[in-house]
Formats: sequence, structure tokens, C-alpha cells
Amino acid sequence: LANQIFETCNRIKPVDSTWQGAAAARQLTLTKPPGSLGQLEVIGNRIAAILGTDKPQIKNKRIYVIAGDHGVTEEGVSAYPRDVTFQMVMNFLNGGAAINVLSRHGGIEVKVVDAGVDYDFPAHDQLMDRKVARGSANFAKQSALTAEQTSRAIIAGIDLAQDAKRDGVGIIGIGEMGIGNTTSASAITAALTGYPPKDVTGRGTGVDDKTLAVKIAVIERALERHSPKKNDAIDILSKVGGTEIGVMMGLAIGAAAEGLPIVADGFISTAAAALAVAFCPTVADYLFVGHRSEEQGHNKLIAYIGAKPILDLGLRLGEGTGAALAMHLLEASAKILCEMATFGEAGVSDKES
Amino acid sequence: LANQIFETCNRIKPVDSTWQGAAAARQLTLTKPPGSLGQLEVIGNRIAAILGTDKPQIKNKRIYVIAGDHGVTEEGVSAYPRDVTFQMVMNFLNGGAAINVLSRHGGIEVKVVDAGVDYDFPAHDQLMDRKVARGSANFAKQSALTAEQTSRAIIAGIDLAQDAKRDGVGIIGIGEMGIGNTTSASAITAALTGYPPKDVTGRGTGVDDKTLAVKIAVIERALERHSPKKNDAIDILSKVGGTEIGVMMGLAIGAAAEGLPIVADGFISTAAAALAVAFCPTVADYLFVGHRSEEQGHNKLIAYIGAKPILDLGLRLGEGTGAALAMHLLEASAKILCEMATFGEAGVSDKES
Repeated sequence: LANQIFETCNRIKPVDSTWQGAAAARQLTLTKPPGSLGQLEVIGNRIAAILGTDKPQIKNKRIYVIAGDHGVTEEGVSAYPRDVTFQMVMNFLNGGAAINVLSRHGGIEVKVVDAGVDYDFPAHDQLMDRKVARGSANFAKQSALTAEQTSRAIIAGIDLAQDAKRDGVGIIGIGEMGIGNTTSASAITAALTGYPPKDVTGRGTGVDDKTLAVKIAVIERALERHSPKKNDAIDILSKVGGTEIGVMMGLAIGAAAEGLPIVADGFISTAAAALAVAFCPTVADYLFVGHRSEEQGHNKLIAYIGAKPILDLGLRLGEGTGAALAMHLLEASAKILCEMATFGEAGVSDKES
Repeated sequence: LANQIFETCNRIKPVDSTWQGAAAARQLTLTKPPGSLGQLEVIGNRIAAILGTDKPQIKNKRIYVIAGDHGVTEEGVSAYPRDVTFQMVMNFLNGGAAINVLSRHGGIEVKVVDAGVDYDFPAHDQLMDRKVARGSANFAKQSALTAEQTSRAIIAGIDLAQDAKRDGVGIIGIGEMGIGNTTSASAITAALTGYPPKDVTGRGTGVDDKTLAVKIAVIERALERHSPKKNDAIDILSKVGGTEIGVMMGLAIGAAAEGLPIVADGFISTAAAALAVAFCPTVADYLFVGHRSEEQGHNKLIAYIGAKPILDLGLRLGEGTGAALAMHLLEASAKILCEMATFGEAGVSDKES
């Protein structure tokens, strides 16, 4: 199993900077002062490099919302009961969650994936069953995932990226649902970046001071117990990760292998993306971070990846909501390169020199 | 003429904070942790107050792109020749400019308005002729606009807002084109806020150090010569403003009078909006600032208005481009209130207390 992950990683090609240069040159011919579209130009040029053209088109946007439960909720780290994970999955399937609203608004397809929810769902043609466990184990006491579960989660994500490519999807967003998963994401962030847990742990869905202290202490003890290897993403995922985080990590690796841009959402999906980058650094070429989350650990991950979040709206919901909003801007950036008139075409005088 | 402006101002009603409270209460019933959609909730609640409902709908988005020439270009303050104003108007009409691309992308109608371009346009059914002058006068030497031109520009904007209301438009964006108009906007900003010109003047479309120094000196001398009254928006507009800035000021006043949300774009449109707020403070209830511009004066105007820009993408193009992108988020904020399921509807457990 692990071999398949390494093989996928080895298939990822660095993006072709020739096209980034060609797009930057094209930007200068378009009817606007040089650089005046700021990040829209930077993003557009990156998409050009990913897609290998100076007129990149993004068609068929898709967000995978991956759900999984977390054994660490036994320690009392969340403001919501564990059942909310499966209840929210039903809400996603019924179209009533924030990610549904924002995806409909942005013309984005939503795919809901059960990576490890502790619930027997009724058969539903919109729910993708990729369950690798009925929730992770409590990482305060043992490894969150077995070696096999870890590999199966990542490979499930790689397969979902291949599905997307086959379906003609042009950009993939990743979002998640899992009560307790900010605790896992904080542990991953501490393990990857070396920051102490107190600097990368926040209030998640809104825990009080007492629960926050518990959360930090649980992570401190878990890192002490497991000593995950800083440079071994799979070891970190296995010891303190979760099923949905593994699938998202696989999606990031798989998307890059398929040559597709991928958009992380907030703290948890960026933790998964950071694991993917730790495992295959070239994933970073294909990765966008949709927004800057309110969770304090997010900034550490963003710096770790070397990314620049597109939006900064104080979001801290997850589900892919920030990725959905950012996709509108990513697509806009591509359309600028495709659809704007040049100075020559429009008969507009260029800058006086 | 001036009476009509005062009457419109007097028609503006402060928004009903009851509805802001009702929307905030509704946010707490929706299937997400309280406050987890950050600015999307803040914006949604403001739109609720403007529209007088806790389920606000925004239909039919429109951006007015207002063009005008500036006599102050005689002083050599811009990187582009004056002809670019009319050339870009033709580009807007042909659909090749950035605002056209971003508006098509966002499902926004674009209306192009000639407020004071120094050019005889051929008849074109998409160009709205509201010409109040063939460009403003050079404010380094005389008032930019006569008293009559000033009033006519503002009233043209008020009328455009009424047109929009009659056409069923639900939100108005304002953008502009006018070579030389960052010089005017900087002079307005200095006059309104009291900051010295060097602190509120930037590179506009990209002038070099030498031209920037000229630009600052021109503004310093103009403010000395004219001494516009700090608290008299119409005096400031007349002395150092411009035709398109007057129309945008009128649009902001008119939109508020019609009960419509209005979205300023970057530095120049925010200068116009700030004049509207200086004239009728209640305009601020209806006003959103689409993005934070790269122009240093913009932050001073944002603080003056007490606004929080929605996007921060390093844009400095104008035309309404930042307003167009922000409208996607404004509409998203409203849809969250309208379309999300409540905890009760979705059968999701609320926070443990």
C-alpha cells in the first residue's frame, strides 16, 4: 500500500516556470497598468504554470468534504458532541450546510465522503463510502490510525483525485467535518513545525478556557508519548492524525500528480496539505490556501508551506467554506488572462515611457 | 439644483438595527458554531438591516463605471496619456476590460457612464451620456468644477441610483476611469482627513519617483490656493474633485436614499463615497468598501468612513474591479441567512452547555 503513495508522489512534476513567465508577459499586454491586479495576477500566473498555458481555463470546480470521527473526543476537547459529525454529514447530503450554500452560489460541485465516521449511514447515492475506520483511536492513549488505516486513507484521497481528473474537474477544493479534528490538526502542526502545542492550539468550534487548557495538555502528552518524527508525514498522520485528514492529504498528493490545482480551506485541511507537502514538496506548486483562519495554528502552517492565503474573513467553520469562496477568485484570475483585451486589440495607448 | 441634493440626503433613513439584531439571532440558529463565518456574518447582518429582513436577498447586481477627464493632467501627474480615458471607455463598451471580465464572471451588469470625458463618442446604445463637462478644469490653477457642474454631477448620480431601483437592482457597485483621478482623490483625501498630501498620495497607475514628487507638490499648492472647507464635501468636490467623482458621490447618496446597499471599489470611488458620508453621514449605513487598495491614501479614507474592506488582494486598477469581486461575498453573506438549515431543521445537536 505504502508503495502506491510513494509512486504517486514520484509522478508529480514541478510546474513549468516557462508558462509562469509567459503568463506574466501576457499580463503586461493586457489593458491595465502593470501589476494593477495584484494577487489576481500572481494567482493567474501560477495557474498558467500548473496548466501549461498562458490562457488557463478552469472548468468544473469540485469540493470534496471529507468526514471522520476522532477518538480523542473521549478526552473532552470539543464544544460539540461527537454525534454532530454524522448529523452534519446528513446536513451536507440534504444541502443545508454552509458549504452547500456557498458551493451553489459559486457553481461548485460538492462531493461528501465518509472517511471514518462512527455511524452506519443509510445507503445514499450522494455519499461516497470510503470508511477506513469507525473513527480514529484516542491518540492520548494509542496511535490514532494503524499503518494500514493510514495508507488506506491516503490512497482513498489519491483515488478521489483521479476520479476528479477523469470527470473533467479543473480544480479541487478540500474541506472537512469531524468533531475533535482541530485537536488533531494542532498536534500535527506542533509535530511538523516544532512549535509548542500552546502556540498552535485554538478554540476550534468555540471551547471555553478550561477546555482549551485540557486540549493543549492532551496534545502535549500525546506528542510526548508518541514522539512523531518531524520529517515523516506518514508517521505523524498515523500517530496523531485522523481518517479525513489522511484522505485530504491523499487528495493533495493525487491532485498534484494529476496536474490539477488544489485549494485548501482552513486549519484542518491546511494541516493535511502541509503533510502532503512534507511528504512530497512539489505538491506546493499546485496548492492554494483559500483563506486565513481564525485558528492561531493556521498561520504557522501557512508559513511552513510558504503560501499566501487568498481571503482573510475571520472564518473558522471548515467544511471547505473558505475554499469555495476562494475558487471564485481563482477562476477570476484565470479569466483575466483568457478574456481581457490587449492594448493592441483595444486600441488603447500603453504607458508613456 | 443644490436643493435636490439636500432633499435626497434628508430622505435617507438610518438602517433599522432591529433587523441587524434579528439576523444576528438567526445566525445562532444556523448549523455552524456561533460566529464561525466571521465577516460573512457581520456583512450578512448589515445587509439584513439595510433591507429590513433577517432573510435578505440580493438580486440583480449592477456596477456603474463612471468616466471623466481631469484638467490636472496638464501638470504631468500621470503615467498614461489623457486619451486613455476615452480609449478605455471604448474598451468597456467592447467588453475587453478587467471590469467586463470580472462582471461577466460574477453575473453583474455593467453600465458605462460618460460623466466628463474630453471626447465626442459615437452614438452607442450601451454608453450613458451624462457629460457635465469635457473634463474638469486644472485644479492647480482654478476650481476643478463650477458650482453648476458640481451639482449636475451629483444629481446625475442620484438619478442613476433611482434608475437602478426602478430596474429592480438589489446592489450597486461604483467604479471609475479617468486619467489623473488619483491626483484628485488624494487632494480630496487630504482635504477631508487633514493628512498632509505626502501621506495620502501614491503612484496611481504607476508613476516614477519624479512624477510622484510633482503630484504631491501639485496637490499641496492646490490645497493652499483653494483652502477647501474640511467639513464641506461639495466645496471640496468643486475645488479639487472631478466629474466622475461627483457622479459616484451622487450614486452613494442616491443608493442610500433608495435603501440599496452600495459597494465602493478602491481609492477613487472610496473618496467619492467618503464625500457622500461627509455630506450625509447616514450613507455609511449602506456603504461597503469592496477591497483595500494598494494606494496609501485608501487606508485613511477607510478609517474616515469607519469601514472594513472585504478583500485585500493588492489591487490598484479601479474600474470597479474590487467591487465586482466583493459582490460575490456580499451575495454569499445574504444567502447564508436565507438558505442555511437551522439546528432544528437539520436535526443537528447544538453546542453542549
